[in-house]
Amino acid sequence: MRELGIGLIGTGFMGRAHALAFRNVSAAFELPFTIRLAALADANPTRAQACAQAWGFEQAYADWQHLIDDPKVDLIAITTPNHLHYPMAMAAIAAGKPVYCEKPLSVSLEQANAMHLAARNAGLVTRVGYNYQHNPIIGLARELILSGELGEIVSFQGEFSEDFMADPASPWSWRCEAGHAGGALADLGSHLLAMARYLLGEVEAVCAQLQTVHGQRPATAGSQELRAIAVDDQVHALLRFTRGASGTFSSSWLKHGYKNHLSFEISGTRGTLSFDQERLNELRLCRVGQEGFQRLLAGPNLPGYAAFSPAAGHQLGYNELKTLEVHELIMALAGQGQTGTDFEQAFEVERLATAIRLAAREERWVKVSEV
Amino acid sequence: MRELGIGLIGTGFMGRAHALAFRNVSAAFELPFTIRLAALADANPTRAQACAQAWGFEQAYADWQHLIDDPKVDLIAITTPNHLHYPMAMAAIAAGKPVYCEKPLSVSLEQANAMHLAARNAGLVTRVGYNYQHNPIIGLARELILSGELGEIVSFQGEFSEDFMADPASPWSWRCEAGHAGGALADLGSHLLAMARYLLGEVEAVCAQLQTVHGQRPATAGSQELRAIAVDDQVHALLRFTRGASGTFSSSWLKHGYKNHLSFEISGTRGTLSFDQERLNELRLCRVGQEGFQRLLAGPNLPGYAAFSPAAGHQLGYNELKTLEVHELIMALAGQGQTGTDFEQAFEVERLATAIRLAAREERWVKVSEV
Amino acid sequence: MRELGIGLIGTGFMGRAHALAFRNVSAAFELPFTIRLAALADANPTRAQACAQAWGFEQAYADWQHLIDDPKVDLIAITTPNHLHYPMAMAAIAAGKPVYCEKPLSVSLEQANAMHLAARNAGLVTRVGYNYQHNPIIGLARELILSGELGEIVSFQGEFSEDFMADPASPWSWRCEAGHAGGALADLGSHLLAMARYLLGEVEAVCAQLQTVHGQRPATAGSQELRAIAVDDQVHALLRFTRGASGTFSSSWLKHGYKNHLSFEISGTRGTLSFDQERLNELRLCRVGQEGFQRLLAGPNLPGYAAFSPAAGHQLGYNELKTLEVHELIMALAGQGQTGTDFEQAFEVERLATAIRLAAREERWVKVSEV
Amino acid sequence: MRELGIGLIGTGFMGRAHALAFRNVSAAFELPFTIRLAALADANPTRAQACAQAWGFEQAYADWQHLIDDPKVDLIAITTPNHLHYPMAMAAIAAGKPVYCEKPLSVSLEQANAMHLAARNAGLVTRVGYNYQHNPIIGLARELILSGELGEIVSFQGEFSEDFMADPASPWSWRCEAGHAGGALADLGSHLLAMARYLLGEVEAVCAQLQTVHGQRPATAGSQELRAIAVDDQVHALLRFTRGASGTFSSSWLKHGYKNHLSFEISGTRGTLSFDQERLNELRLCRVGQEGFQRLLAGPNLPGYAAFSPAAGHQLGYNELKTLEVHELIMALAGQGQTGTDFEQAFEVERLATAIRLAAREERWVKVSEV
Repeated sequence: MRELGIGLIGTGFMGRAHALAFRNVSAAFELPFTIRLAALADANPTRAQACAQAWGFEQAYADWQHLIDDPKVDLIAITTPNHLHYPMAMAAIAAGKPVYCEKPLSVSLEQANAMHLAARNAGLVTRVGYNYQHNPIIGLARELILSGELGEIVSFQGEFSEDFMADPASPWSWRCEAGHAGGALADLGSHLLAMARYLLGEVEAVCAQLQTVHGQRPATAGSQELRAIAVDDQVHALLRFTRGASGTFSSSWLKHGYKNHLSFEISGTRGTLSFDQERLNELRLCRVGQEGFQRLLAGPNLPGYAAFSPAAGHQLGYNELKTLEVHELIMALAGQGQTGTDFEQAFEVERLATAIRLAAREERWVKVSEV
Repeated sequence: MRELGIGLIGTGFMGRAHALAFRNVSAAFELPFTIRLAALADANPTRAQACAQAWGFEQAYADWQHLIDDPKVDLIAITTPNHLHYPMAMAAIAAGKPVYCEKPLSVSLEQANAMHLAARNAGLVTRVGYNYQHNPIIGLARELILSGELGEIVSFQGEFSEDFMADPASPWSWRCEAGHAGGALADLGSHLLAMARYLLGEVEAVCAQLQTVHGQRPATAGSQELRAIAVDDQVHALLRFTRGASGTFSSSWLKHGYKNHLSFEISGTRGTLSFDQERLNELRLCRVGQEGFQRLLAGPNLPGYAAFSPAAGHQLGYNELKTLEVHELIMALAGQGQTGTDFEQAFEVERLATAIRLAAREERWVKVSEV
Repeated sequence: MRELGIGLIGTGFMGRAHALAFRNVSAAFELPFTIRLAALADANPTRAQACAQAWGFEQAYADWQHLIDDPKVDLIAITTPNHLHYPMAMAAIAAGKPVYCEKPLSVSLEQANAMHLAARNAGLVTRVGYNYQHNPIIGLARELILSGELGEIVSFQGEFSEDFMADPASPWSWRCEAGHAGGALADLGSHLLAMARYLLGEVEAVCAQLQTVHGQRPATAGSQELRAIAVDDQVHALLRFTRGASGTFSSSWLKHGYKNHLSFEISGTRGTLSFDQERLNELRLCRVGQEGFQRLLAGPNLPGYAAFSPAAGHQLGYNELKTLEVHELIMALAGQGQTGTDFEQAFEVERLATAIRLAAREERWVKVSEV
Repeated sequence: MRELGIGLIGTGFMGRAHALAFRNVSAAFELPFTIRLAALADANPTRAQACAQAWGFEQAYADWQHLIDDPKVDLIAITTPNHLHYPMAMAAIAAGKPVYCEKPLSVSLEQANAMHLAARNAGLVTRVGYNYQHNPIIGLARELILSGELGEIVSFQGEFSEDFMADPASPWSWRCEAGHAGGALADLGSHLLAMARYLLGEVEAVCAQLQTVHGQRPATAGSQELRAIAVDDQVHALLRFTRGASGTFSSSWLKHGYKNHLSFEISGTRGTLSFDQERLNELRLCRVGQEGFQRLLAGPNLPGYAAFSPAAGHQLGYNELKTLEVHELIMALAGQGQTGTDFEQAFEVERLATAIRLAAREERWVKVSEV
C-alpha cells in the first residue's frame, strides 16, 4: 500500500485539530494509503519541534517552503492565518502537491480565483476545511433533501452566531481586518454559506445589510489605545437559490448566549428539518403526516458515525468531524471523490460573500454572477 | 359604577374568544365599568340566537347595523371576515362608538387609512386584536428592551409559521384572496409585524421576497375543480428599524411541523432574548455575563399573569391573552390608556406589509414612508 | 332546561379558579343545565360580598352552612383550607347535595373514608379537584395506554416538584402541619398519585423515604420566632402497580428551578411517553419503530381542546383545565358520568399516601391494602 | 522521558475506543511518558494482526498471556467480555503490571473482591472504564457539589436507559446471562451507580424492584429457538446516601426512544443541576435566586475540554471521554493520582449492585454493608 506523507503548516487550534484527524483517520477507516505524519512547520522553530514530537510528526520545519519541497510530503495541509493561505497554496500547487486548506480560502476574491484556477490547471485535488459538512447527520439531511423526501424545497433560514466578540472590550485582532477576511460574515458566515450551497445548491441573488456595532476596540486586551474597526459585527441577508427556494441568512459574532450556533431550518412541500451545531448529533425532523417534530440522534446507521461508534447516542465531537473531512480528502486522493468542498467550490463561497457585501453597500439585490 | 354594554359581531372562532374574554375580564380584574353582554350579531339569526344564549348575551341580531344602533351597546367588537371590518367599523365610528376590531384592520391600505382617520377625527378609542402582545411575558420582554437592560438593540429575527395550508389539497378559502387580506403575510405575518413594532418601534425600510408555492388549490375540500391562487404562501424579508437594529422576518402557512410558531430572537449589546408562541409562558434570556440561556417561566411577578394565578408555572392559555387584551381596552375606555394597538398603529402595520409586498414586486429596498 | 345552582365556598386562589370555570363552562360547551351562579360564601362578609359581585354570584354568605341550606344551591363547591373539607362536605351530603371538593380530600384517612362512605350511602355525585387529569393531552396519554398502543406498560417514573418552600426563610403555614394534610407528599404528591392511578390503575405496594430538610421555619415572614416543622419536604418512593408495572415516585416543595413540575414518563413494550405540567400542551412520544421522540402539541383533534380553540398550538391554560373538570362534573350530574375522581377514588389516593408514610416510617414495603 | 508500553486485549467496540484514546492522548496533553503502542491481543490471530496494523500497535498476539508477559508492555488494558476480566487482570497483577479494565469489573462480587485485594497487595495502579465520569462537565457538576455551591445535597434522581433490547426479537447474548454480569443493572446501571458514588459518595442502603419483561428471546437473530432469560430488563431502586441525601435510581435496556440516556438530577438547598449523556456537553443548572434553569455548554474553562478545543460549543464526543480517562490513568501511573475509579471503587460499585439485587429478591431495605 502506498504511503501518503502529510505536511502540516501551522500549530494553532486548527493545526492540532488537523494533527488529531490525521492520527485518527487510519484507526477509524480502512484507507487506500498508509498515512505518514511526515512534517510539521511553524515559523517558531522551538514550537515546531515540540509540536512535531507531541503529535508524532517525523520532521519539524521553521520555513514552510522547505516543508512543501520535502519529497516525503505528498499532501500540504494549511492552517495558518488567512492571509498566508494564498502564498502557501500557490507554492504547493507549483510543487504539484494536493492542498488541504483551512477556510476561508483567502483574503480576496481575486486570490481565491487565482488559487482555484491554478489548482484546476494543475489537475490537483484540493479541499477546504468546511468541516461542518462532514457531520454524518448533515449527510442525512442532504440525503433527505436530494432524494426528494422533503418534497420541493421552498425555504432556507440559516444563522451562524457566536458571542466571542460581544464584549466591547474584546480587543482588535487580525479577524477585525477586512484585508484578512475578518468580520462575522467571513469568519463565521462563510461556514453557513458553504453549508447552504452544500445542501441546496447555488445561490442566484442576494440582498443584505451589514453592521459594525462596536466601531472601536482596544488595540490589545486591557489597552487604553483604541483601534477603529471597519468589518461587520453582524449581517442579515436574503438568499434566492437557483433551484427556487428563498430564505434568510444571518451571522453575528457578538450575540450573547451563543457559542457555536451554526443553525438552519429547511422546509419543503413534504417536510421540515432543522439543525443546530450546538447539538451536533441531533436533527429535528417533521415529515408530512407526522404529528410533530421528532428528534433524531446520530447513530451507526449513518456511515460516518459507524466509523467511530457502533451505538447510537454516543455522540461524535467536533474533532471527529475533522477526521471525517480528512477521510473524504484521502478518498478523493485515491480517485474516489465524494462531496468535499474543493477550491472551486470554496471560491464560489467567497463569491457569494462578496455579493452579500456588495448588496449591503449598494442597498440592492445583487446577482452572484455579477461579482 | 357605569355599565359598559358590549356589542359583538361574529360568532366564529374569534367571536367565541371575544365572548369568553368579556365574560372573564371582570372576574380577573377590578374594572372601572360593569360589563354587560348587551348584544350579539350574526347574519344567521338562528345561530345568533343560540350563541347569544350560550354565551350570555341579552339580545341577538341578524343585522349588525341594528346592533350598532342599539343604545344598550357602548362598544362594538368586530370578529367577521376581513372584508367586513371596514363597513362595520365605519358605521360604528359614525355612531360615535368605540371599536374593537380583529386583525388585520382591513383588506386594503386605503381602507385602513380611512378607518384610522375616521376614528381619530371622531376622537374614539379603537383597538385591533393583536392579542399576542398582551402576553405578560411579552410585557417582560418589552420592559427588558425599553429599560436598556439588553443594551442597544442590534438585531431582530422573527418568524410566524404554521402548517395549515401545507397540504396542497387544502382548499381555496377567502384567505387565499389578496382582496380579502389573504396570504401568509397578511394572515400570519401581520401579527409578527405588529409584534416587531411593539417591541422595537418603527421599521424604516424593507426588502423582501414572496412566493406562491401551490398556484392552484381545490375550489372546495375534495373537489376536482381547481382555483388559481395568487397570494403568498411564504415571505422572507429584511427589516431596518428606525432606532438602528436590523433583522429578518419570515412567515409561511405551509411549513410542516409548526402550529403557532410566532417566534423571535432579539439581541442587544447586553443580552439576547427569544420567544416562541408555541410555548407562550416561556422566555429564553441570556444577559451579559451569564453562562448560558436561561428559561424564564411566567409567574405572578408579571401583573397580567397574577390576574389569573398566584403561582408561577401554572400557565396562561391563548384565551387569557384575549382577556388581557380586553382588559387593556376597557382601561383605555376609562382614560387609563396603555399600550394596545389602535387603528393608527394597525394602519402602520398594514403599511409595513404593503411596503414588503412592493419591495418583493419591484425587487428593491422600499422605505415604509414611500407607501 | 333545568337550572343548576352553584354554591361556592372559599374565595382564595382556588375559589376564583372555580368561579372562572363555572362562568366559562357554558360558553365552551353545550350543557344539559343552565348554570346559575347562585351563592358564594366566605367567612369574611365584606370579601364574600365583593367577590360575589366581581364574579357574578347572586348572593353572598358569611356562614357556609347557610349557603348549603340555600334552596337555590344545587351543587356545593369547596375551596377552603383542607381541614374544613370534612365538615363542609359532610354537611352538604347531609343536605343531599352533590359535592365538588378541592384536593386533598381531607386531613386524615379516617375523615376521607367517612366522606366517601357518606357520599356513597347518599347516592350523591362527588368530585375532587385533581384538575391535571382533565388536560386533553393527558386524555390522549390515557388513551394511548388503555388502547394498548404502548404495549404492556412496564414502567412509571413520576415527579411533582416545586420550589416555593426552597427558601429556609419561607415561613410556617398550615401547609406545614401534618394535621392539615401538609407536606410535599400531601400538598403536591397527591396530585401525582392521583395521576398515576388515573393512568395505570391501582398501586399494590410501596416503599418510601421522607425527609424534612428544614426542621424549623419562621413563624411568620421575617419573624425571629422559629417553629418546628414535622412534615416532609421531599419524598421518594417505589411503586408496584397491580397490573404489573413498577416505578418511582418523587415529590419536593424545595427543589430550586421548578414551578409546577408534575411530570412523568411511562414506558411499555411498544413505546414511551412523557409529560411535564410546565409545558402542559405537549406530550413527548416515541412509538416502536420511530426514529426518536416526537413532540405532540395539543390540538382540536382532542375533544377538550376543541371546546376552547379550533386551531392546534394555541394552548390551553391552567384555568381551562379547571373548566374541563367542571364540565366533566356537570355531565356526571346529568348521568353521563365519565372519568373524574370521586370521593372514593380520592380516598384511595389518601390511602396510597398513607401507605407511603407508613413504608417510610417502618422502612419496609407496605401493601396499600394494609392501611 | 520514560516510555509507557501499552498492551491492549480485545478488538471490539471498546478495543478500538481504547486504541483511539491511547493514540490521541499525547496529542491532547503533555504527558510524563512517551506512549508506545506495544502490543494488541485478540484470540483470532488474523484480526489481531489487522487491527494492530490499522491502529498502529507494534505487535499482535493471539494469546493474551503472551501480551502480558511481553517486557515491552507496561500497562494492560482489558476490553474483552466481562467473564474474562478476572483471569486477565489477575494474570496482569501477578506479572506486576498495572491494569486498566473495562466495566463492570467482573461477573461476581467474589471475583471483584479478589481482584481489588490482589491489586492492593501488589501496590499496583488500577482503573476501571467508567468513562462518563471523565466528562469535563461532570467535573464541573462534582465541583459545584463538593464546594457546597448547591448547599446541602438532599436529592438524587438518576436513570440510565437505552432501547437496544426493546425489541422482543432482539436475540439472546452473553449480556443476557447473570453469570456474565448481564442485565440492565449490570450492563447499564453500573455506570450510573459509579456516577452516583462519584458525585455524592457512598450509598448506605437500598430498596429495589427488578423485572424481566421478556422471559424468552431467540437464541440467535431470527431463530425460532427461544432461550429463557433470567436477568433484569429494568430496575427501579431507592438509594440512601451516607451523607444524607436520598433518591431514586432506574435503569432499563428496553425503553423506547433512548439511546444513551444516562441522566440525573441532583438538588441541594442552594440549587439544582441536571445532566443527560445524550447531550453530553450540557449541564442544566438553577442556583438559588436565579429565575430559571440555565443551559451551560462545555467550554475551555473546563480543563479537560481545553485539551481538545479552545472554543466553547465545539463539543467533545464519546471517544474523547475515553481519552480523558486514559489521561487520568497515565497521570496516576506517574504518581499524580486523581479521581479515577480503581478496582476498590469498582468493587464497591459491584457491591452496591449486589445489594440492589438482594433488596429486590427479599423485598426489603438492604444495607450495602450487609453484602
